[in-house]
Amino acid sequence: MCPAMKYSSRMNALEEGALLKAFQDSGRPGLISFSAGFPSTETYPVEEIERSLQRVMRNHGHEAMSYCSSSGYDELRRLIQNRLHQKFGLNYGLNEIIITNGSQQGLDMSAMLFLNPDDIVLFEAPTYLGAVSALKIYQANMVSIPSDENGINMQELARTLAKYGNRVKLIYVSPDYQNPTGRSWALDRRRQFIDFISDYPIPVLEDAAYSELSFDEAPQKPLAYFDQSGQIIYIGTFSKVFCPGLRIAWLCSKSELIEKYLLLKNTADLSSCTVAQYLMADYLNHNDMEDHIKRISTLYTHRRDVMVAQINRCFPGGVRFTLPKGGLYLWLELPENIDTDRLLPLAIERNVTFMEGAAFYPDRSKRNEIRLNFSNMKDADIKKGIEILAQLIRQSVSPPERATSSVNRR
Amino acid sequence: MCPAMKYSSRMNALEEGALLKAFQDSGRPGLISFSAGFPSTETYPVEEIERSLQRVMRNHGHEAMSYCSSSGYDELRRLIQNRLHQKFGLNYGLNEIIITNGSQQGLDMSAMLFLNPDDIVLFEAPTYLGAVSALKIYQANMVSIPSDENGINMQELARTLAKYGNRVKLIYVSPDYQNPTGRSWALDRRRQFIDFISDYPIPVLEDAAYSELSFDEAPQKPLAYFDQSGQIIYIGTFSKVFCPGLRIAWLCSKSELIEKYLLLKNTADLSSCTVAQYLMADYLNHNDMEDHIKRISTLYTHRRDVMVAQINRCFPGGVRFTLPKGGLYLWLELPENIDTDRLLPLAIERNVTFMEGAAFYPDRSKRNEIRLNFSNMKDADIKKGIEILAQLIRQSVSPPERATSSVNRR
Repeated sequence: MCPAMKYSSRMNALEEGALLKAFQDSGRPGLISFSAGFPSTETYPVEEIERSLQRVMRNHGHEAMSYCSSSGYDELRRLIQNRLHQKFGLNYGLNEIIITNGSQQGLDMSAMLFLNPDDIVLFEAPTYLGAVSALKIYQANMVSIPSDENGINMQELARTLAKYGNRVKLIYVSPDYQNPTGRSWALDRRRQFIDFISDYPIPVLEDAAYSELSFDEAPQKPLAYFDQSGQIIYIGTFSKVFCPGLRIAWLCSKSELIEKYLLLKNTADLSSCTVAQYLMADYLNHNDMEDHIKRISTLYTHRRDVMVAQINRCFPGGVRFTLPKGGLYLWLELPENIDTDRLLPLAIERNVTFMEGAAFYPDRSKRNEIRLNFSNMKDADIKKGIEILAQLIRQSVSPPERATSSVNRR
Repeated sequence: MCPAMKYSSRMNALEEGALLKAFQDSGRPGLISFSAGFPSTETYPVEEIERSLQRVMRNHGHEAMSYCSSSGYDELRRLIQNRLHQKFGLNYGLNEIIITNGSQQGLDMSAMLFLNPDDIVLFEAPTYLGAVSALKIYQANMVSIPSDENGINMQELARTLAKYGNRVKLIYVSPDYQNPTGRSWALDRRRQFIDFISDYPIPVLEDAAYSELSFDEAPQKPLAYFDQSGQIIYIGTFSKVFCPGLRIAWLCSKSELIEKYLLLKNTADLSSCTVAQYLMADYLNHNDMEDHIKRISTLYTHRRDVMVAQINRCFPGGVRFTLPKGGLYLWLELPENIDTDRLLPLAIERNVTFMEGAAFYPDRSKRNEIRLNFSNMKDADIKKGIEILAQLIRQSVSPPERATSSVNRR
């Protein structure tokens, strides 16, 4: 670039791109990756998808190659509408649903819709770092609310809202098998949150990316189910339960808001990839998606259990974690003297990666937590990778003891 | 929405969405649409695409369903790199190319990268309204530079740069068969522009969406070809020469800038649809794209000629237009007493649409110009639609005379 060419000031708000790095690393051969939040590629129903693509090209070839409407392919939106109704009791109208390029685009457009520089966004800490990037780049101030095993801390939420008042323009939460902790909000907490927040004119982004990946229990009712005021903006995706490469997600809210999102979508990229939407709709019409999700949930439950057993076998004492009942992640609190900034390069040297917990706090305050993805590696690699991590952690900790699971230990 | 919920102030910069409306209208049955800038769907090589999709799913099924890197599928970027070199003499490295969701996303990300509120963007008037929306929403001031048959007016450009100085943060131009006028910059003007602008530290977006659709002449060298300082950001797309529903476009610039675009892409939607990129690469590897482009150029040349002949036959005098040598659009200047705001509803009543010229000026200043797309309708519909428009225009103009083409009349 010409030396004097100037970037916008919002570029200062952009992190060096931890998520981007996770994406780049994921291709390294032989790497045991616990870092990226990918579903396991061998679960992709490639043959069924090929059949769907063939049907799409034979029956709708020209439409599938044309521009799609900015709201997305009608048939796909109808299918999503029905699924949301059947699985979660949600009653969105067709004009309350827009298709986005992954849920990331829903986050980005929400930031565009609601945030001015210096506005305040509240979110659980720790939280999904992609959401943090998407919101931070609009120069909002990110203020975190502690959360516990049952969800966001209501007292802290009330205190923070009292402190910042109408400077708070958006709340971002992820109540189901949250990335990165794997935690879910209890039913009571959901009700309390909705009761409390309905007094404030603040939109709430409910990120439901993992809500369909429940292992040991029926899916919980989303916040949107209890919402009377229309302030919940509900975001879901096929990336975690089907194939992320299709980049198909959805955002649901009152139609007045969806009209604004349509303008933003039109400005951002006109419309999403049409053939991917036709493929997705055809797949849903010709296959049992719930059966597919059941199969991958069974696989991920197994892998979670393999990882947990190996952690219990190998890790030193003072390591705490919660058994996740769904999703893709295990969240570990290491002994306080461990600095993950030092641990990660050592692990990469041994061909193992994980995500540093610090990446999930906008201020990078905690240095002794890590996120382990358990969906993506085969049993042998999970065992080997955990053993390597255990050795590295042991080298910094003594005397060695056994790991303890803080709650929900099975 | 809760009555008190607040949108960001950037939403005030968003138009009611003329482009969005053009998208919505395009599905109406029986409509003779001269409005949207779509390629003609019957040109889509549906059978070849089906074969490509089959090969992709058999050879790369799992990769094609996985997340792609934020920069895009390497093989596709290599193929684009080669095409740009062979067709236009451009020498971009692989790390100087990023895949975007249509060129619209390249415009959006460029605005994010360079624009603060109240910054000034220069552009030709009239210009592509999608670019105007993408830039305006970042609260930039849009300042237009008149252009003539040979390109942007250099005197006006110099005067405007002198006036606004370093408040100007971006220049947007489209030198080839521009949307909406169909005009191309002369070679001299391209050289003058590059010579002149290289003294200013201002990035220039070169939108080359139509550069491959040349009817009567060899493609011109892009501005990027003459660029020594690295200030040209070159944007191209498969949407106009192949299939827009794939949403595959590219943005090329110096690698330092591309690194910033990667961060923005990662924030906006992580990555583009993978299977669409694999499909595109496979199609390019197994088919002759230049032959496809030659075929559609022949078709569009024919349709342009049908439209021009019918305009000459039916339209009253005082209508001026320039014969476009490529692209998808014919730009008409109607008699001054015609107000397209009144003409358009009358046309829609008769089941004919066009784009009002005013939509291509940020201040909507001109009210007697219209853009006609000639690629999308069959001969009979072109003839019928033009006849209806002619009747409506005649009803407002007297005495009737024949249309006159201002330049390049054949």
